[in-house]
Amino acid sequence: MKPIGECKIGIAGLGLMGGAIAMALKNSGAVRVENIFAYDIDENTLNEAVTSNVIGRPFISPPRMLPLCDLVILCLNPSTLLEFMEKWMSEFAPGALITDIAGTKQNIVSVMEKTLREDLDFIPGHPMAGSEKGGFSNALACNFTGKNYILTPLERNKEENLQFIKDLVYRMGFGRITVTTAAEHDRKIAFTSQLCHVIAAALIDCENDRYITRFGGGSFEDLTRIAMLNAPMWTELFLENKTELLKRIEQFEGSLDKLKEYIAEGKTQELLETLSAIRDRRTAMSQ
Amino acid sequence: MKPIGECKIGIAGLGLMGGAIAMALKNSGAVRVENIFAYDIDENTLNEAVTSNVIGRPFISPPRMLPLCDLVILCLNPSTLLEFMEKWMSEFAPGALITDIAGTKQNIVSVMEKTLREDLDFIPGHPMAGSEKGGFSNALACNFTGKNYILTPLERNKEENLQFIKDLVYRMGFGRITVTTAAEHDRKIAFTSQLCHVIAAALIDCENDRYITRFGGGSFEDLTRIAMLNAPMWTELFLENKTELLKRIEQFEGSLDKLKEYIAEGKTQELLETLSAIRDRRTAMSQ
Repeated sequence: MKPIGECKIGIAGLGLMGGAIAMALKNSGAVRVENIFAYDIDENTLNEAVTSNVIGRPFISPPRMLPLCDLVILCLNPSTLLEFMEKWMSEFAPGALITDIAGTKQNIVSVMEKTLREDLDFIPGHPMAGSEKGGFSNALACNFTGKNYILTPLERNKEENLQFIKDLVYRMGFGRITVTTAAEHDRKIAFTSQLCHVIAAALIDCENDRYITRFGGGSFEDLTRIAMLNAPMWTELFLENKTELLKRIEQFEGSLDKLKEYIAEGKTQELLETLSAIRDRRTAMSQ
Repeated sequence: MKPIGECKIGIAGLGLMGGAIAMALKNSGAVRVENIFAYDIDENTLNEAVTSNVIGRPFISPPRMLPLCDLVILCLNPSTLLEFMEKWMSEFAPGALITDIAGTKQNIVSVMEKTLREDLDFIPGHPMAGSEKGGFSNALACNFTGKNYILTPLERNKEENLQFIKDLVYRMGFGRITVTTAAEHDRKIAFTSQLCHVIAAALIDCENDRYITRFGGGSFEDLTRIAMLNAPMWTELFLENKTELLKRIEQFEGSLDKLKEYIAEGKTQELLETLSAIRDRRTAMSQ
């Protein structure tokens, strides 16, 4: 791989995350804006990105951009990503490096293991950052500083390419990279991300008083901010990772039932001990 | 009631909220520190409060403080509050005004309606502010600016006293006061506060990987911060408001079950429509 400063980088999909990545690359100082290309289906978004000097060249057609890029970052929903790869596989430059940011990994890894062109390298990734407000126009509000990034390499990934992506991730401001398997990623994310979104959604689903926030002291607001979700993307993520997510929902329901029983039956001592243990467990969790 | 600047104010219980209220009164500029008294069972806390110039006079014995106060703010857990009122009722100054900050209101209102001394006035209140970190030493981190405050007056409350408390609440920095019944308070709070704490606790109860936060992107952290709760206080609040809380847990479980079913059965359209409606509903909720 060339040094990062000489690479032409193509971002496919200039939504919230694609936009935030373009900005983070530019702000890292390691990449010149003229080397940041972007493809999107929305010409207005592309124009906005060029005008605001976040990208160097806009593309409305993938086969025009892909042959020029040393590195392609796919910032697409999981299903769109797989369609994109299938449709445009032959257009990537020889030996190009590819990475993605999708929130589920097993489906992508299993398809890429089978179908990726011999000379390409695809390193699956998941930046643990985002915002309930989607779209390129909100990308500025998406801060990567100190955030987590997960990589789930394929067996065939070249070590030097993996190192290249890690360097790039840190340059974008992320604070910690965890390298793991796609299966482990999907199990953990089902809990930290998808279950949390299901819970936030269920909380709003069961309350229709729009002035309920007059009774809010922060907890409700914190727990339900993510209910302002990107519905099509989360529908896809929930269904893609259905098996793991359903397990996590059931584990959560088990814990909720236990607490409910203690409350219903007035089991003061059990409730107190369980809440104390929970407090200690949460406090011990690294941030 | 005298003008606030001439009142002697006694704070009973100098924990997180008692401490934060003392600081807010001092910082309001309306009350001189020498007119802020505090009772606590912990002498070290009292010394810290005097040394840091947050209170003017410390009291380890309620019958020494209460006769001196025009206004008493009870910053105690619900059960301790009721014991305190029963034990020291005769010690309050004639015509004193009393308010509290407890997180459940029906129990307190029903006892006060029956037992409050004729010449006293007791206005139940609930500042919707706090922190998962308890105790006087964390009081500085407890910011009231713009927060909600709920008042659930007794029938016998004097209008001028109610106005006095409202003025005081705004002077402490709170942004909105909602006046309602104790029953309505307990119904709403069961949802915005207690249910949220039960959910956060259940989330931590069902995951024992202390490094799980490596897979966190903000959602998990936001949903579980309040799991670092004050276990004795929340045990009490959950059990005090058991009937309303159990109703809310069941409503939540109903919504969670619906989402779970859509996911399990791959009902893409239903899931997408429900999540879109939830997004819109949450967005429409005033902050």
